[in-house]
Amino acid sequence: MAKRNGGGPATAESMASKQRDISVSEFFLKNRHLLGFDSPRRALLTAVKEAVDNSLDACEEGGILPEIAVELEQTAETRFRVTITDNGPGIVKNQIPKIFAKLLYGSKFHRLRMSRGQQGIGISAAGMYGQLTTGAATRILSRIKGAQVAHAMSVQIDTRQNKPAILSDTEQDWLPTFLPVNAEGQPEGDPVVSRHGTSVSIEMEAAYQRGRQSVDEFVKQCAIVNPHLSLHYRMTLITKADPKAKADATPAAPATVCVTYHRAIKLMPKIPDEILPHPHGVELGMLMQMLKDTESRTVRSALSSDFSRVSAQTALDICERAGIEPKTNPTRIAHQQSEALYKAIQGTKLMRPPTDCLSPIGEAQILAGLQKELRADFFTAVTREPAVYRGNPFQIEIGLAYARPQENEGLGNEEPVRVMRFANRVPLLYQGGACAMTKAVVGVNWKSYGLAQPKDALPLGPVVMLVHMASVWVPFTSESKDAIAGYAEIIDELTLGLQECGRRLSVFLHKRHHELEAARKRSYIEMYIPHLALGLKDILQLSDKEEDKVVTDLKKMLEKTHLDV
Amino acid sequence: MAKRNGGGPATAESMASKQRDISVSEFFLKNRHLLGFDSPRRALLTAVKEAVDNSLDACEEGGILPEIAVELEQTAETRFRVTITDNGPGIVKNQIPKIFAKLLYGSKFHRLRMSRGQQGIGISAAGMYGQLTTGAATRILSRIKGAQVAHAMSVQIDTRQNKPAILSDTEQDWLPTFLPVNAEGQPEGDPVVSRHGTSVSIEMEAAYQRGRQSVDEFVKQCAIVNPHLSLHYRMTLITKADPKAKADATPAAPATVCVTYHRAIKLMPKIPDEILPHPHGVELGMLMQMLKDTESRTVRSALSSDFSRVSAQTALDICERAGIEPKTNPTRIAHQQSEALYKAIQGTKLMRPPTDCLSPIGEAQILAGLQKELRADFFTAVTREPAVYRGNPFQIEIGLAYARPQENEGLGNEEPVRVMRFANRVPLLYQGGACAMTKAVVGVNWKSYGLAQPKDALPLGPVVMLVHMASVWVPFTSESKDAIAGYAEIIDELTLGLQECGRRLSVFLHKRHHELEAARKRSYIEMYIPHLALGLKDILQLSDKEEDKVVTDLKKMLEKTHLDV
Repeated sequence: MAKRNGGGPATAESMASKQRDISVSEFFLKNRHLLGFDSPRRALLTAVKEAVDNSLDACEEGGILPEIAVELEQTAETRFRVTITDNGPGIVKNQIPKIFAKLLYGSKFHRLRMSRGQQGIGISAAGMYGQLTTGAATRILSRIKGAQVAHAMSVQIDTRQNKPAILSDTEQDWLPTFLPVNAEGQPEGDPVVSRHGTSVSIEMEAAYQRGRQSVDEFVKQCAIVNPHLSLHYRMTLITKADPKAKADATPAAPATVCVTYHRAIKLMPKIPDEILPHPHGVELGMLMQMLKDTESRTVRSALSSDFSRVSAQTALDICERAGIEPKTNPTRIAHQQSEALYKAIQGTKLMRPPTDCLSPIGEAQILAGLQKELRADFFTAVTREPAVYRGNPFQIEIGLAYARPQENEGLGNEEPVRVMRFANRVPLLYQGGACAMTKAVVGVNWKSYGLAQPKDALPLGPVVMLVHMASVWVPFTSESKDAIAGYAEIIDELTLGLQECGRRLSVFLHKRHHELEAARKRSYIEMYIPHLALGLKDILQLSDKEEDKVVTDLKKMLEKTHLDV
Repeated sequence: MAKRNGGGPATAESMASKQRDISVSEFFLKNRHLLGFDSPRRALLTAVKEAVDNSLDACEEGGILPEIAVELEQTAETRFRVTITDNGPGIVKNQIPKIFAKLLYGSKFHRLRMSRGQQGIGISAAGMYGQLTTGAATRILSRIKGAQVAHAMSVQIDTRQNKPAILSDTEQDWLPTFLPVNAEGQPEGDPVVSRHGTSVSIEMEAAYQRGRQSVDEFVKQCAIVNPHLSLHYRMTLITKADPKAKADATPAAPATVCVTYHRAIKLMPKIPDEILPHPHGVELGMLMQMLKDTESRTVRSALSSDFSRVSAQTALDICERAGIEPKTNPTRIAHQQSEALYKAIQGTKLMRPPTDCLSPIGEAQILAGLQKELRADFFTAVTREPAVYRGNPFQIEIGLAYARPQENEGLGNEEPVRVMRFANRVPLLYQGGACAMTKAVVGVNWKSYGLAQPKDALPLGPVVMLVHMASVWVPFTSESKDAIAGYAEIIDELTLGLQECGRRLSVFLHKRHHELEAARKRSYIEMYIPHLALGLKDILQLSDKEEDKVVTDLKKMLEKTHLDV
C-alpha cells in the first residue's frame, strides 16, 4: 500500500520541507465538533441558530421589527434543507460570497457592542458543513431596500484557501414572504410580504428529533427572550411508507410541525451603542499595538480618544505618572515606556466602562416571557447592574418561576430544577454542564431558600430558572457558542442574581407556609369561639348584642395573639 | 465620549462598509481561553505543555532519545520566564519565525500519523500570550546537526496579519546542555551536552502553584508515559523578603524545585507510519475535493493510490457499482457521479484502516509506569486492539492500580478514584469533567466489580486509573487540547477497556476477600484443634504420637471442608 513518508529518521531539513500553512477552513473542517457539527442532530440546530442569530442582528441594526421564517425540509433519510428567511435590510451583492463562504469574516468581531454573532464563523461554517456532507452549495437570495430585484447566488468555500467560490450569480424577482399559521397550523390571515430581506438555504446531513435540544425548543426560547420577534417555523419530514400498509393505499401526509410565534410587543429593543475599549481591560501587548495603530499624534490624545473613560485631564495625569512627555509621538514609544504607561493606567482610578453598549431583556419582559410559557404560583426576575470582566462590560439577568409540583409536567419536587440559559438573547441548548451559568446555580446554597439540594448538584424542585448574560464579548468555551467560560467576575454576578431570586423565593415559600398555618389556626378559632361566647353569655347574662361583640372581640384578640407570632 | 458608530439604523450599504477579515491571531487573542490561557496558572502549564509536546515529537521523528530541560523562572510577582530545551534535530533557520510566530502553521496537520502536536497553533499561541501580557518576544536558539553555530532569533506575531515579525537574528556558539540532579536536587554526574537541539524561551504573565494541575504534575506524568525520556525540571521563585524578619538579616535562598526524571528504557517507541485516508472515513465533500486534487489520471487509479485499503481490483469494483467508466478523468466528475461514487464506496466492504500509524504505550510499559509511581497491591493494564472513528484509527489503553486505603495518601475508600488521562502520550490535566474518558469511567457499572459508586459519578476507592488514547487525530473539545470529544466509537472502546480492567480487579478483590476469610477460619481451627485433640486423647487413651496424628488429620480435614467452599 502506498505511504507518503519514507523510512528512517527525519532531519531538520526533511522536516522543514513538510511545514506548511493550514487554512482556517481546513482547521475547522477537521475540527467540526468545535463548531457544533459533531452529530447530525446538533448540526441541524447549529445551522438554524447561526442563521437566526444573523437575521435578528441584521433586523435590529436596521431598525426593523424582525419577521423570520425557519424552514426544515427533509430531502432524504439523513438529509435536510435548512432555509432561514428574514425581512432585514438585505446584503449588498459583493458582500454575499464572503459573508456566507469565508470563515473569520464579518462586522461584529472588531467592535465593542452587544450582538448575537461575534466571531464571523457561524453561517459560513454551516455552509461548509453542508458542502462537506452533501456536496451542495449554499444558496442565498437577498434584496436590499429600494432595489428592483433580488440577487440570487450559490456559493461554496474553497477550504484550501478559505475563499468563497461563486457557482451562480443571477437576478431574480423575489420578495421575502411569511405565512402566519394558527395554533392548529392552519394559515391565518394574509401573508406578510417585505420589500427587503435575505434568505439562506443549506442542504446538509442532519437528523430531526424533538426534545430539550431540538430546533423546536430553540425557536420557542428565541420567542421568549425576543418578544419583538415574529417567527414562523415549519418542519416537514418525509413520511416513510408504512411497510404494513397495502400497496394501493394512498400515502400518508408528510409529518409536519407548523407554528407561528407572534410578536408580543412592537417595541424594538434599545439599539446598543458601540464603545471604545476601557483602559483597565487592555493588556500590555494590546496597549502597545493600539499606540502603534493610533491616528492621534500625541500619547495624551491617543489615550483620551482611543479609550473610554479617559478625559484629556486624566490622560495628562497618566502621562505624568508614567514619566512620559504627553506630546510624545505614540508610535515612537519604547517597550519600557509602554510598561510604565501600562502600570500608570492600572494605578489610575477610572469610571467603569459605559454600559449603553448593552441591551438587557429587562425584568418586566423576563416576567412576561416566563408567564407566557409556564403556569406557576410565583414569578420573579432580577436585572443586575452592569459589571466588567477583563475590561468587557456585561450584565446578568435571572428569572425564576415556582409552581406547585403537580401543576407542571416534568417539574417535580424530586427533579432537578430546569435552567434555561441565554447569551445575548440566544438560547444555549448544549453543554450545560460546562457552562458558568450551571456552575453558578450549583454553587448557590439553595437549602437556605427552601429548596432541597444534593451535594455539588442542581437544587431540586418545581422551578424554572432563566439565566441571561448580555455582553459586548461573551467568552464562550468553544466556537460552537454553547457554554460560557467561568471567569470569576461572571460567576460572582450570576451568584448575586441567583441569590436575590432565591431570597424572594424564600419569602414567598415562607409566606405561603405562614398563610397555610394561619388558615389552619383561623378555622380552629372560628370553630370554638361561638361555644365560648355562648358560655360567657350564660354566666354573665349578656344580651345577644353583647354576645356578638364578645365574639368579635375574642376573634380579634385571638387572631392577633396567634397570628402575629 | 467618542463613539465609533453614528446614530440611526444601519442600511445594507452602511453594514457592508464595516465588514472585514478577521485574522486567526486576532480571533484567538480575543478567545485566548480557547487555547488554555484563561488564567495565569493554566497559562504556565499550557506553555510548558505545548513546548514539551513539540520537543518530544521532534526528537522521536529524528530518531533521537529525548533529553529535555523545563525551566520556570519567576521574573516578577506575576511573571515567569518559561524555557524548554531539547536535543532534537534542530530547526532550519527560515522555518523558525513561522513555527514560533504564526498560528496554523506546521507539518503535522495534513498527515495521518500519530503525534503529540496536530494543530500548528500551540507554541505560537504561547508566544502570542507572552507578547500580549508582557510585550516581550519569543526567543529561540536552534542548532541543527552538523552546523558550526546555532541560530538565535527573537520573533513576535503581527496579529493583524498572522505573520511573524523578526526582531533579531544572530548566530551564536551554543550547545544544548542538560544538568542531571539527584533526589535532593544536587548536581549528579556530568552535564549532558548535545551537538544539536532547540531552546525556546517565553516570558509571560503566569502563576505557579503546586497540585494536580501544576507543571510539577505534568512533567511527572510525562515521565510515566514516556519511559524513554530524560527530563530535567527546574522551577525558581523569587523569595519575598519576610516582613517580620529583621532588615539586616540575610535574604532567604530562592524557593526552588529541581528534579531529574531519568529514562527507564533506552528503546525508542516505534516511529508510527503515515497512512492514507480510509475511504469509509471520507465524507462526500472531501471525496469531491480529493478527486479534484488528485495526481492520478483515472478515477480507478485515484481510488487505489490516494486511499488506504483500496486495491486496483477494489477500485474497479467501486467504479462498476457506481456506474462510472474507470478511465474517466477524476477532475471531470460531475456532482451526481461523485454521489454515486460515494454511495458505492460506502457499500463496499473494505479492510479496516492500517494501524501502524499508531504507537501505543504497551501493557508492560503502563504497568512499569504505575509501579514506579504508586505503592499498590494490584496492578493491571489493557491495550485494546485498534478501532476506528470517522475513518481515523485509534487505540485505547487502560491501566489500573488498587491499594489498601491506608497505604496511599489521598486515596481513601470514600474518595472518588483518580483518573489520569493521556492523549498520544500527553497528560491532560484540565477539563476532566468534559472529557469522554471521565464519562466512560462514570458510565461503567463498578459496583459489579467490587467498588462503591454513587449515581452518575466516579466510583469510590483507593484506585488510580490511567487512560490513554492514541490516534492519528484526537478529537479534542477545544484548541487547548484538554478533553476528548465523546464520539460513540471512542466511548465504546474506553468502556470495553475499563470493563476488562474492572473484571480483573474484581477477581483480585474476590480472591483477597476469600484469602482473608480463609485466614480467619484457619486461625479459628488452629485455636480449637489442640483442645479437641487433648480431649480425644483422654477419651481414647491415645499416645502423644497418636495425638499429633489426630491433630494433623483434623487440621487437614477441617481446612479442606471449610476452605474449599
